[in-house]
This record gives sequence, structure tokens and C-alpha cells, in this order.
Amino acid sequence: MPDDEAKLPLDELMRAIEAADCSVIRELAEEMHYADLAQAYQEIEEEQRDLFLKTIGPEKAADMVVELPDSMIEQALGAFSPSELKVLFHELSDDDRVDILQDVGDEARQRFLGLLGPEDEELTRSLLKYEHDTAGGRMTTRIGRVFVHQTVKQAIEMLRRGQESTETLSRIFVVDQKGRLLGKLRFRDLAFNTWDTPVRDIMREIGTERVLATADQEEAANMLLKYDLIALPVVDEFDHLLGIVTHDDAMEILQEESTEDIEKIAGIGGEQSEETYLNTTILTHFRRRAGWLTGLAFVSILSGYVMMRFGSILSQVFLLSLFLPMVVAAGGNTGGQASTMVIRAMSLGEINPGAAGEVAWKELRTGFFLGALLGLCMALFTMVLLPFFHLPLPPGMSLAKVALAVAVALTTQVTSATFLGSLLPLGARAVKLDPAVVSAPAIAAIVDVSGMVIYFSVARAILGL
Amino acid sequence: MPDDEAKLPLDELMRAIEAADCSVIRELAEEMHYADLAQAYQEIEEEQRDLFLKTIGPEKAADMVVELPDSMIEQALGAFSPSELKVLFHELSDDDRVDILQDVGDEARQRFLGLLGPEDEELTRSLLKYEHDTAGGRMTTRIGRVFVHQTVKQAIEMLRRGQESTETLSRIFVVDQKGRLLGKLRFRDLAFNTWDTPVRDIMREIGTERVLATADQEEAANMLLKYDLIALPVVDEFDHLLGIVTHDDAMEILQEESTEDIEKIAGIGGEQSEETYLNTTILTHFRRRAGWLTGLAFVSILSGYVMMRFGSILSQVFLLSLFLPMVVAAGGNTGGQASTMVIRAMSLGEINPGAAGEVAWKELRTGFFLGALLGLCMALFTMVLLPFFHLPLPPGMSLAKVALAVAVALTTQVTSATFLGSLLPLGARAVKLDPAVVSAPAIAAIVDVSGMVIYFSVARAILGL
Repeated sequence: MPDDEAKLPLDELMRAIEAADCSVIRELAEEMHYADLAQAYQEIEEEQRDLFLKTIGPEKAADMVVELPDSMIEQALGAFSPSELKVLFHELSDDDRVDILQDVGDEARQRFLGLLGPEDEELTRSLLKYEHDTAGGRMTTRIGRVFVHQTVKQAIEMLRRGQESTETLSRIFVVDQKGRLLGKLRFRDLAFNTWDTPVRDIMREIGTERVLATADQEEAANMLLKYDLIALPVVDEFDHLLGIVTHDDAMEILQEESTEDIEKIAGIGGEQSEETYLNTTILTHFRRRAGWLTGLAFVSILSGYVMMRFGSILSQVFLLSLFLPMVVAAGGNTGGQASTMVIRAMSLGEINPGAAGEVAWKELRTGFFLGALLGLCMALFTMVLLPFFHLPLPPGMSLAKVALAVAVALTTQVTSATFLGSLLPLGARAVKLDPAVVSAPAIAAIVDVSGMVIYFSVARAILGL
Repeated sequence: MPDDEAKLPLDELMRAIEAADCSVIRELAEEMHYADLAQAYQEIEEEQRDLFLKTIGPEKAADMVVELPDSMIEQALGAFSPSELKVLFHELSDDDRVDILQDVGDEARQRFLGLLGPEDEELTRSLLKYEHDTAGGRMTTRIGRVFVHQTVKQAIEMLRRGQESTETLSRIFVVDQKGRLLGKLRFRDLAFNTWDTPVRDIMREIGTERVLATADQEEAANMLLKYDLIALPVVDEFDHLLGIVTHDDAMEILQEESTEDIEKIAGIGGEQSEETYLNTTILTHFRRRAGWLTGLAFVSILSGYVMMRFGSILSQVFLLSLFLPMVVAAGGNTGGQASTMVIRAMSLGEINPGAAGEVAWKELRTGFFLGALLGLCMALFTMVLLPFFHLPLPPGMSLAKVALAVAVALTTQVTSATFLGSLLPLGARAVKLDPAVVSAPAIAAIVDVSGMVIYFSVARAILGL
């Protein structure tokens, strides 16, 4: 979160927009970061938005529009005339342009493509072939690129000629005459060497730090993270350098993937959109949650069925009702904890299905100790506190026996639930499903049923019912 | 995840280590990325690790050691003699050196500090003053820095003199004579301008894109993310430029924070360590989960108390048991979904406590629709399917009445649980608590109790029990 001081120019801008003071808006916008302008755009009233965009103009608006939530982009672009849109699209980097075209409707996409110059249009159409969530769909092609047979002087001249259209020169890539990726350079390697030094002598070879254009965006982001890269080169199957995925894309991708994990673990389904929480409609919120809920509700009826079948036990020993919800819930809680840890560890690439045995053994022991701890707590509670309440017990039954039954049931339930919670995500991955489909509520619903069976069976056996 | 091809050099290395073939190990390590070397170190047998480190030598090992899980670092450093450690520590960037010293024990820290040269030691001690999770604790001080009154020629010469010790020249920062931050430059701005151009004319002013050294690391990471920066300048309260936090730190911070959110939502407590799942001991796994579990177990006894009190209703109408677990669980599920969405949206800076009203109204409606949907499903299930099972009902009671009671109870439970699930994290933030302390299991435990009360009360009222 930006600190308070950071909000000041934003506040000033908001006031200027409120007052429709165009010259102040223009002046403030000139100095401000596009991310802050995007924030202002979202916070002002809808009827002021077009005026705001018109005032700052298409050049300044270009980068800002990219930062808006998907659903606002088409409307924002509607503020501009075709000739202004031409300027705006020309101003955008190629990956941002593609992003925008992927987010608007088909009709708008065709109309916008018609506004691009022939070169931009061809490039954009070729990038639109890659799925949005692949490395190719995320890459920018405007990169610093030099040839291996050049000297430092020739390389610098080539970069200088291209500098206007290049997004970043923080990393410069070296290709052979056929455009195949060989190595990389930093700008300082060029600047601090003599002009006749061959590029070949100062480049660093690039080994495995490259990604196929068709690879999942998460693979690209994880490589950027693992290798601490500013830019990861994207290649085709013949190793031709196509573009780069940059560090800021990687951060966005990782944030999106984390959000997706979090939501799936909580049993929220469907495509994770780029919308913010508040910009998402009730209907979408409803749809993304209803599926799992309804399915799990029917699983819960199984728990109810077990309860109905064994209900007579509860009416024989009312005291057993006191611990039933707890035994059942403890299983859901530990199972959910275990699955969450395993799912996150898999997302971070820390464990793979091959480690299933190790994970299971770890969770089996952790689960047993957790169950034993809870069992002990509840047995103590039963023996020490309950006598003060003078609860009715059937003749011949002691609190000690109830305490034993509760402790044994809890240990069994927690151990098995933890074990199951850790193995189900690994099982899902083994059959090529996303491990995060094993949501915590799903684990809870499953171990609710087993918890009921365990509780009633143990109680029957130990209390002789 | 790196693709298969990427694993080949790693596999070769593993074989060479297995065979203790030092010359092959050295040759392979020379070409490999330090992140891959760190992976190899973790995967080989413990007794081979020292040999591996000795073979690649302290210079190559330096960056690799930083990538290891915290608990392995001290042991890895133990492979080297004091003179080798000197080389290793000299090789490290200042932020990595500080990281390592923060991760080892007190005795080792003092010993290692003694191995540093006087200049490095002073710098390291001054950086150790910042908490590990602040911008200052994460920053590197070896940055490209030029003065505003210099010309391009003077600036390039200053950078060239410092180049050996500079971590990144991707961004160069401009300060006044007192060292106060004024603006930034890219290397190409220097390279593509004439030598007598004043730095003042080509620098870009830096507005709000700076962070205090004492600010939380998450604030720094969020600014890097928001403003798409490669490096965020870190300043003291007088705006003196102290260092930078880089994009790769930001990615790590965001991943750590996401993991922390995920774990808290699942009711896993305590400090999130940098350990991987498999490297964490059973005892730590146990400790981090036991707290919440025990607390929630006692809350669940309240549910049991309600059940015991109203138990006679269940023995009057056995059919009610069939739906009890479902009504209760549905509340936990929707409440957990709502709190998860709100917690994540707050982490991403999408909503703040001021938006509580909007969030509550959104969730109240979403909850009502979800409850109504579930209620309808269960009413249909009761009316259409249950007649086939000839379940016993008390005289004068119809399935239609039971269906009505279940539907009303479900709608009430789901609406109130969703509402509560969305408001509790906002409430936690309002009283300065981390919203993620309102874990999904905690919500579930609370709405279990209310669910029991709602179910029994509604059933009593509608069925006239």
C-alpha cells in the first residue's frame, strides 16, 4: 500500500476532476504515474470519466488504460475518436496492445485492428494467435537484439536505431544470423568495452533460461522467479528468439496464480477474472460459489443419513451429542490444513507426486499427534469439568468411559482426516487434475461422513451400546 | 516449473556428484545457474554435500548458498575454512550477506562478521539494524548513483569506477550533493546522449515512487508491482537515498505473503518460515496447527451443547437429523468463501475498511441467493425423492412442512454466515488486526453454533414441536 504522502497528488487530481478544471488535470496528469491515473479513473464518477480521458489525451491515456480492470477497458476506449485511438494504439507496447484486444468484444477487436498501421496490425495478429495465458500471449517483441558477429560499435548503432520502439534495454539478447538465441548482454557490457570488441567475446551464453512460446505463463513466471531474471527470452521450437516476458508480467502472473489457488482452496470455482472484488457483479460472485456449494450439500446429506441411522445412540446417551460436532469439525479443520499446505507446496514446486510417500508419512504422524493432543484435552475436560454440571448418564456408564470414547474417536478422526487431506491433492495431480480442486470444504464434507461413522462406531464399541 | 530439457545438466551434475568426479562437477557447475546448483545441493545425500561445495569453491558457492532454505545455510557454510569464507562473503551482494547473517545463530554471526573486511563489516552492521521484513532489511546498497550536477561524461566515469561493486545498472539514481534522491536515469539515456549533456536535463524526476527504510517489505513489494519497477529506491526520513529493493526481492516477498495468507485462511498459525514443506519438521508442523485446532475444538463444544439441549427434537422427528449436518456445513462453506474473497481482496489492496458497507451489501445479497438456491434444491429433494424411502414421520406431520423448515433454515443460515464471513475480516482490520486471522475454520466454528440454533428454532416454529 502506498503511504499517505503518496496519495496527495491523487487527491489533488480528484479535486480537479470534480471541478472539471482541465488545465489543472492536464498539468497533474503529466507528472503522475499511469498506475495512479488508472486508480483515479476507477474512483471518479462514471459521467466524469470521458472528460478525464479526453483531457489527458490518448498518448497519456494509453498506458493507463492497460491498468484498468478488463471490464472497463472497452468503455474507456469509447471516449476517443478513431484518430485518437490510432495515436493510443501506436503508443502501446505490443504486448499491452494484444492484452487490450483480447479483453474487448469481437466487434471492437476488428474495428481496432483496422486502426493499426500495416506493420503493427501484422504483428498484433501474429501475437493474437497465442493463448492469453501462455508465454507467447504475455511476451513483448520490442526487445534489444544484436547479432553475434557484430562488434560493440555495430551493436550500439543497431540498438540506437531501434531505441524508440524498444521496451527495455536492461537486457539485450544476442542471436545468430538465423535469429536463434545464443546469449545475452547488459548495456554496461557494451558501454564499458572498446568499440571493436566482438559481441561474441562479451556475451554470456544462455543455457536453460528460456521458455517456449506455447508454454503456460506460470512456467515462465516461475523461471523468472527462480533465476532472478529481469527478462526471460521466449523462443519457438527451433529456438528462434520471439520476444521476452518481463519481470513485471511475472509478478502479475504470480499474484493471479496465488489468488486462483486461494479461491480454489476455499471452494470458489470458475475462471479467476482480472476484475477486482468490488467490480465483480453479484451474479458472477453467485455463479463462482454456487457449484461447489450445491455439490457439497448433497455430500453432507450422507452425514445426515449416518446421524439418522445412529440417532438412537444419541438419545440413549445425551452426553454424546456434546462432542459430536467437535469430533466432526476437528477432522474437517485438520484435513483442510493438511490439504492447504500440500497444495501450496505443490504450487511453489516444493513437492511433486513422487514425494507422496514422504508427505503421507509426515502428515500421518502430524495428524496422530494433533489428534492425540485434542483427545487428551477433551478427556481432561470431560473428567475435570463435566462432573460439576451433573449431566444425566445411563445407569452403569461412567464419565471415564465417555472420555475414553471421545479421545479414541478424536485421535482416529483427526489422524485419518489429516492423512486424507494430504493425499487427495497429490492424487488429483497424479490423475492430471489441478490439486487445488481438492478444496478445504470438499475435504471437510468427506471427513464429516467418516467422522460420524468413526464417532458412533467407537462410542458403540467402548460404551457397549 | 522448468521443462524437461532444463533438467538435463542437473541430472548430469547429480551423476557426477554420485561418482565423486570432481573435474566434471567443476566443469558443469561453471555453466549452471546458482538456483540449479542450490536445487542439486538439496537433492544429494547429506554426506556428499561438503565435497560438492568444496569442489565448486567459495566463489561459485556464494550465490548458491543464498538460495538454500534458512535451516541449511549454517551447515553449508561449515564446509569452508575461514579463508574460503572470506572469499565467499566478499563475493556476496550486501543484501544477501545480511540475509545470511540473519539466518545463522548468534555465535556464527559474530564469527562471520569478524571475517569481513572493515568496510564490508561496517556496512553489514549498519544494515543488520533494519528488521528482516522491512524495506531497509531487504535493500541492496550497491547501486548506480550519480550526481545531478554532473555531465554525462562525468556520470559514466563515476559508474565505470564503481562497476565492480554495483549490483544493477538497469536503473541509475540521481542525487543532490547531500545525497538526497532527485531522479533516475536508464543506462541508455547516458549512452545515447552527448558527453557534455548535463545529467539534470536527461533525468526523470522521481515522485512518490520511493519507500522509507523502516516501511514493511510488503509495502515496497506492492509499490514495485503497482508501478512496474525494476528497482524501488529506499530512503531515510530526510530523503537520503540508502539503497534499492529490486524486482526479484519483490517477487519473493509477494510469494511469501501469498503463502502466509493462504496458511492463515486455513487456520495455520505462527511465523511463516522460508522453509519448504518437506524441510519443515513434524514438530513445527504440529505447533503451527495445534493452536487454532484446540481453540476451535472448544468453540465446537458450544455446538454440541445446543445439540444436546435440542436433542429431543431430533428424536421426535428423526428425519430432521438427515439435514442437520448439511445446514450447518453450508453455513461454514459460504462463510469461508466470503471471508476468503474479502481477505484476498484486502491483501491485493482492492478494498479497505471504508468499503465495509458496500462489501456487506454485496455479500448479503450473494448469500441470500446462494441460500435460496440451496433451500430450493433441498426442498425439491425432500418432496421428490424422499417419498420413495418411506421414512417414518410423526402423525400429523407432512414432508412438505419438513421441506419448508429445511429451506427456511438453510436460507437464513447461509445468508447470515455469508454476511458474517465478509464482515469479520473487515472488522479485524478496523481494530488493527491482520484480516487473515479470521480463518475459514474459525468462521465455520462460529456459524456451526448459529446454524444449530437457527435449524432447531426454525424447525420448532414451523413443525410446531
